[in-house]
Amino acid sequence: MNPTATLEHCRLLDSADPLRRLRDQFSLPPGIIYLDGNSLGALPKATARRVADVITQEWGQGLIRSWNSAGWIDQPARLGDKIARLIGAGPGEVVATDSTSINLFKVLSVAIQLAARQSPNRKVVSKVVLSERSNFPTDLYMAEGLCSTHGFSLKLVDSGEIEASLEQGVAVLMLTHVNYRTGAMFDMPAITQAAHKAGVLTVWDLAHSAGAVPVNLTAPNADFAVGCGYKFLNGGPGAPAFVWVHPRHVGTSSSASPQPLQGWLGHAAPFAFTPGYAPAAGIKQYLCGTPSVLGMAALDCGLDTLLAAEPLGGMAALYAKSLALSDLFMRLVEEQCAGHGLAIVTPRTHAKRGSQVSLSCESAGAYAIMQALIARGVIGDFRAGNGSTEPDILRFGFTPLYNGFEDVWHAVAHLKQVLETGEWTQAQFNQKNAVT
Amino acid sequence: MNPTATLEHCRLLDSADPLRRLRDQFSLPPGIIYLDGNSLGALPKATARRVADVITQEWGQGLIRSWNSAGWIDQPARLGDKIARLIGAGPGEVVATDSTSINLFKVLSVAIQLAARQSPNRKVVSKVVLSERSNFPTDLYMAEGLCSTHGFSLKLVDSGEIEASLEQGVAVLMLTHVNYRTGAMFDMPAITQAAHKAGVLTVWDLAHSAGAVPVNLTAPNADFAVGCGYKFLNGGPGAPAFVWVHPRHVGTSSSASPQPLQGWLGHAAPFAFTPGYAPAAGIKQYLCGTPSVLGMAALDCGLDTLLAAEPLGGMAALYAKSLALSDLFMRLVEEQCAGHGLAIVTPRTHAKRGSQVSLSCESAGAYAIMQALIARGVIGDFRAGNGSTEPDILRFGFTPLYNGFEDVWHAVAHLKQVLETGEWTQAQFNQKNAVT
Repeated sequence: MNPTATLEHCRLLDSADPLRRLRDQFSLPPGIIYLDGNSLGALPKATARRVADVITQEWGQGLIRSWNSAGWIDQPARLGDKIARLIGAGPGEVVATDSTSINLFKVLSVAIQLAARQSPNRKVVSKVVLSERSNFPTDLYMAEGLCSTHGFSLKLVDSGEIEASLEQGVAVLMLTHVNYRTGAMFDMPAITQAAHKAGVLTVWDLAHSAGAVPVNLTAPNADFAVGCGYKFLNGGPGAPAFVWVHPRHVGTSSSASPQPLQGWLGHAAPFAFTPGYAPAAGIKQYLCGTPSVLGMAALDCGLDTLLAAEPLGGMAALYAKSLALSDLFMRLVEEQCAGHGLAIVTPRTHAKRGSQVSLSCESAGAYAIMQALIARGVIGDFRAGNGSTEPDILRFGFTPLYNGFEDVWHAVAHLKQVLETGEWTQAQFNQKNAVT
Repeated sequence: MNPTATLEHCRLLDSADPLRRLRDQFSLPPGIIYLDGNSLGALPKATARRVADVITQEWGQGLIRSWNSAGWIDQPARLGDKIARLIGAGPGEVVATDSTSINLFKVLSVAIQLAARQSPNRKVVSKVVLSERSNFPTDLYMAEGLCSTHGFSLKLVDSGEIEASLEQGVAVLMLTHVNYRTGAMFDMPAITQAAHKAGVLTVWDLAHSAGAVPVNLTAPNADFAVGCGYKFLNGGPGAPAFVWVHPRHVGTSSSASPQPLQGWLGHAAPFAFTPGYAPAAGIKQYLCGTPSVLGMAALDCGLDTLLAAEPLGGMAALYAKSLALSDLFMRLVEEQCAGHGLAIVTPRTHAKRGSQVSLSCESAGAYAIMQALIARGVIGDFRAGNGSTEPDILRFGFTPLYNGFEDVWHAVAHLKQVLETGEWTQAQFNQKNAVT
């Protein structure tokens, strides 16, 4: 990279970028630099027509027949196989279904039951689920409820204390691979290995890593994983989530625990309508009720935008570009925005970084600064820091499918102007809404 | 009605029907008589444009901002209020979310916990959930799993034995208001009253009654209810379901049990991202993860097709027409299709009938007969009877919003021809698919 990252240099980087043409897959609003794909991925061009076809043709004309003729019934497994290619899982090991929270409930419940059953082989029964204190709240809420039901306790530690805590009596380790607030990434293979060495089962939430960073669930022999369809997978607002379980934990024998949300689509023979539950073979036993067919169609289009990168190097190439984008962003922020109380809280080390950069604001003005940026057409978001409900973190997500180097340059230029003019202190930017 | 129900007479009934114009709200395939709205409601004309707008404008242009600016975050409660008008619930008492199975898990779990807590006031702890043997399987599967977790047992009896069984030690009664297989309807007020007299909590599944028959949850002081968005509510395949809880059971005090699927959208302050779970006030505590925004938009259009009947008499008028349609159907089947081994299994008494008619087939040829009917453009479906996995039930759903008397006449005429020609015995109609 140049000693000074000029706009011209950024344009050269874009024009030399072999992934650049993937941006053409998306319908992006003119004049907007979208750095919030870590919260809601942008709209693929194919989605509107595809969903319209599902509505007018498959639903409108095919009606109930489309469960077979349009393959609706196969969507969860078919999309699951596409997701599997992005997270290093095998075909038939993933299904798209329900929400991330619901899927987490399923796998954590099975993990807790498995751990409780394994306990006779140990000297001490460790009824503890270990997680990171700053894990995404819904994961902690779900774990809190499940622990309460099963007589387990939820132990929360800081990210640096995870490995040491594994030796102190833990049954299940539940982590989000990439932290939603800081963008820090755990070393999944190393932590999984350490957990297994300590006899601890692992549950990984891939919400901020599927479609963002290379994930390989097979190599570290992980146990359970869930993830989100509407962030880096570009599946649209509230898209179906996914669930993966290592085949060794998915059985129909008495040695495997059934997941607790025993709905009819997870049954071995859903259309036999028999009164007793018998789990389907394989990952389909993690299905529950009827999935959103419209949501599945949109998710399918989102997945295709990522699979289009396979001939260009796939997730490894996308992540390499993501790191280059976030490196550039951090460097420009330091060069251009010094003296305004911002600090980079995302790790500099590539191996410890997901696909976002978070800046802490000394002034606790994260909400207002982001509103001023959005008014200028640069969309990121904000989050509260640890122990505070007042937003003090600015988040910028980098989606190499549609973000370019010039976008980064302009984003930082706008941030600089927002800070230097003090326009973020104007009253209009301090009216809080619920979500951004 | 005429002594002989001629086609001409049916046409007169249609032309005199004040609800007839509601059919114009739907996009129905030409040449099709659709009698499967009890499985998947037909497509409202408004849906395609509405969902396209959500995709291209709200998602594509608004991006993450649409959670506020397009009101995505308010969808579950806003749609819940519309559903409430159809089921005799109050505003703020219903949310649209997740699937029927998932919502059943939430309410049944709370009911079981409440019952267990009430038990010190009783002489004997009755850890029993009572249900109907031929209840929809997913309800039984979910109950089976929950009972196992909480040390309860699931007791299944025939529909006529429900009230007598209430006195034999039951904690929770879980019933589907209208039976999916036979169309038989329970007397919800009377059974709820009997249950409460016996100290039993009630969980009602309204999958086949919301939008089909008048429901009043408030009058009988019911406890919990769930229902489906994609049947009579016309929300589209896999539409979000709904959940209602009587306000006396929804609290944030320690006396109320939290539902177990503690996701972030059910939190009192979801966007504060605090690590500990605190349930939202009111029914919003039954939300969990992020709902399908596309699914919600389609459900909204479906609900509007029903609310359009409010100035015309609402659910009472729709149900009166439904009964006239199913009366006519039963009468024509008896007149036209005698001698082919069909028997009507749906109750003749209006008060005991939902909005469908089921015919049992002596020959167990329900699958093939329905395929032959579908080939003629008459779409119903089939189900297996009790204790058999071989379909022996033909189901015909009546949706007064878009079905007319002439449709009924033609449907029976086709059924008569299928039976008389024996065309259903042809090999092409005997190749089974998974779903119809």
